Amino acid sequence: MLIVQKYGGTSVGNPDRIKAVATRVVATVRQGHKVVVIVSAMSGETDKLIRYAGQVSSNPTEREMDLLLSSGERITTALTSMAISELGQKAIAFTGRQAGIITDAVYTKAKIERIDADKVNKALDNGYAVVIAGFQGVTEDDEITTLGRGGSDLSAVAVAAALNADLCEIYTDVDGVYTTDPNIVPEARKLEKISYEEMLELASLGAKVLQTRSVEFAMNYNVPVVVRSSFNNNPGTLVTKEDQDMEKVVVAGVAYDKNQAKLTVMHVPDKPGIAARLFNTIAEANIVVDVIVQNVSADGLSADISFTVPKTDSRRALELAQRLADDLGAKGVDVRDDLAKISIVGVGMRTHSGVAAQMFGTLSKHGVNIMAISTSEIKVSCLIEAKYTELAVRVLHEEFGLNKHN
Amino acid sequence: MLIVQKYGGTSVGNPDRIKAVATRVVATVRQGHKVVVIVSAMSGETDKLIRYAGQVSSNPTEREMDLLLSSGERITTALTSMAISELGQKAIAFTGRQAGIITDAVYTKAKIERIDADKVNKALDNGYAVVIAGFQGVTEDDEITTLGRGGSDLSAVAVAAALNADLCEIYTDVDGVYTTDPNIVPEARKLEKISYEEMLELASLGAKVLQTRSVEFAMNYNVPVVVRSSFNNNPGTLVTKEDQDMEKVVVAGVAYDKNQAKLTVMHVPDKPGIAARLFNTIAEANIVVDVIVQNVSADGLSADISFTVPKTDSRRALELAQRLADDLGAKGVDVRDDLAKISIVGVGMRTHSGVAAQMFGTLSKHGVNIMAISTSEIKVSCLIEAKYTELAVRVLHEEFGLNKHN
Repeated sequence: MLIVQKYGGTSVGNPDRIKAVATRVVATVRQGHKVVVIVSAMSGETDKLIRYAGQVSSNPTEREMDLLLSSGERITTALTSMAISELGQKAIAFTGRQAGIITDAVYTKAKIERIDADKVNKALDNGYAVVIAGFQGVTEDDEITTLGRGGSDLSAVAVAAALNADLCEIYTDVDGVYTTDPNIVPEARKLEKISYEEMLELASLGAKVLQTRSVEFAMNYNVPVVVRSSFNNNPGTLVTKEDQDMEKVVVAGVAYDKNQAKLTVMHVPDKPGIAARLFNTIAEANIVVDVIVQNVSADGLSADISFTVPKTDSRRALELAQRLADDLGAKGVDVRDDLAKISIVGVGMRTHSGVAAQMFGTLSKHGVNIMAISTSEIKVSCLIEAKYTELAVRVLHEEFGLNKHN
Repeated sequence: MLIVQKYGGTSVGNPDRIKAVATRVVATVRQGHKVVVIVSAMSGETDKLIRYAGQVSSNPTEREMDLLLSSGERITTALTSMAISELGQKAIAFTGRQAGIITDAVYTKAKIERIDADKVNKALDNGYAVVIAGFQGVTEDDEITTLGRGGSDLSAVAVAAALNADLCEIYTDVDGVYTTDPNIVPEARKLEKISYEEMLELASLGAKVLQTRSVEFAMNYNVPVVVRSSFNNNPGTLVTKEDQDMEKVVVAGVAYDKNQAKLTVMHVPDKPGIAARLFNTIAEANIVVDVIVQNVSADGLSADISFTVPKTDSRRALELAQRLADDLGAKGVDVRDDLAKISIVGVGMRTHSGVAAQMFGTLSKHGVNIMAISTSEIKVSCLIEAKYTELAVRVLHEEFGLNKHN
């Protein structure tokens, strides 16, 4: 088999842990597999670099930010390769560029456009374990880019897809994907397997175990992904295509996301094309809008348009919305960032009705007010006040039968 | 003017110092100059990375070592560029590769083969201060290399030569080039100027202020270099072509080097070509041999060949010499690493006689035994026991009239 293994920041957090990673890699090679290793920066390293940037600049240039942050992964890549060689297994370290990871030029959150895997394939054919720096790539113009927070997951899945790997293992500091955050609900269960669609919803809804785009990528290219711990040999959670077992479960997990800001453009004159203009402007700034709600205003003559964005983008979104509001003669823009999004996810929802109503009822029964709702075929999300997050997660987890004792 | 400024590890040792560097760069730009900045890794960073490598491997692969070590300079390059931008001056950061620094493939001590300066020139023409990562380059095959300890000096001088810069300023934590190490002789004087030839001898003899190869490069391309402190505005020392003033001074400086190991191949049969074979073998391993002495052996029938190498290379040199000694039927190889080399340097020696004799006499008078001698037109070096180093430096500094009070 050809196996891609990705090790996160805590798994390579110090030289001893890097040696443990090397041991696992070599064990996998000795089982007869070809292995490609993707590594993150040592935990704390990226935060240190961001802190440095903040100390020298109030608004660091994004191009230089990427040059800065990509250094962390290069360090672990070199060290991991050395540690594998030390165990008598040939190994070679590649930067994102050397591994042929070509991205667009959107600094700090670049998208992978393609992977020129020749060099990696050649090294594998020559018996090397190949270690690749995650989180980074290079544009056609030879500029260094990074893929955004959690980007190493994406590097791993994209490399697995490009190499047509049999398996992509994501090693982290938890045992797999849980029905919800075990820090909030100690009864949360580890899932044996989960569908791409469910994982995608959970990932994008704030379950931090796998980066959203990496799940999309895995789904699109049908890459089997296993999430497991680098600190033990437990089997982890397989993320794969939907099957009949999965459909029997109505709700597979409960997710929450506190990184939400809600902007409301008030009293927008009721003219066609205005919403399109607003959301085009936001999209052009590479800000992802999540929930959108449009209401008739209190005056009955105009509309209030509300939408949510990641908190980190709220300042820029506000500037853009404000400017547009002025142009349009809207009344102004209101921001709230004390909100959280709570979601239930499960492919079984497709064939079971009443799930949304059951969620609303449960929240209501515990006095949690719902401020906006969004749904898809396999999930229901509610925007609530952030202070109710833990309560909401707990009662929904119980309500949908996810606790261990069930 | 086009000015290249190089800042060493202590000058960029933390975010505050990087901001101070940015202030100096911007001040230089505002005086109407174009500025290229070469930076080293933050002080301590390279040592930390080397320590990590030692923790994961007993014998780190050199290719990966270069990938590892080159990361440090990338970090300061990005941060310095951000800090300059923060002051309202356009700035752009380039890695060694992006700056077009092409080297050979001798990892950990690569030689610069050429510099493709188009990208840098274009950025300068567009009004940017250009910040380049020192110490690193890339091979034609796209492999990352480093230039060896002190390699950022070489980066600076080579870039200055390639750009035809008017001046190359080397910013460090001392005020310039001294007549000897002020830590040993408090009376040491700062030199206003010094010739390339003298600087070259001093640098290669262990005065740590400028890396040897960078001085050679400056001499070959006639790049005026100023060594000065980044912590004050003192004028520093100009390293330039020899002039008449300089010739009046017999001895410009006293240098010492404790990083010396002496190998002796004993009882080498007296056949032609043997020395050539020995030193070819050593040279092929990229080990630089310094002093060579050949004596008739005690048995009168064969020769003892002694030579010195940097201590760091002594183990490998010993292996090579040992193997050759076995082949040749020599008696064996002896190593001593408790030696130091003391040297006096000055272009005035060319026109003054008796300088060497005066040096030997001074050392002898103070009981310092001379174990080998090597000379050039402008220097005399003596190999002595390391424990006499400070004494020898002090008495020679005094003897040749270099003390401040003279």
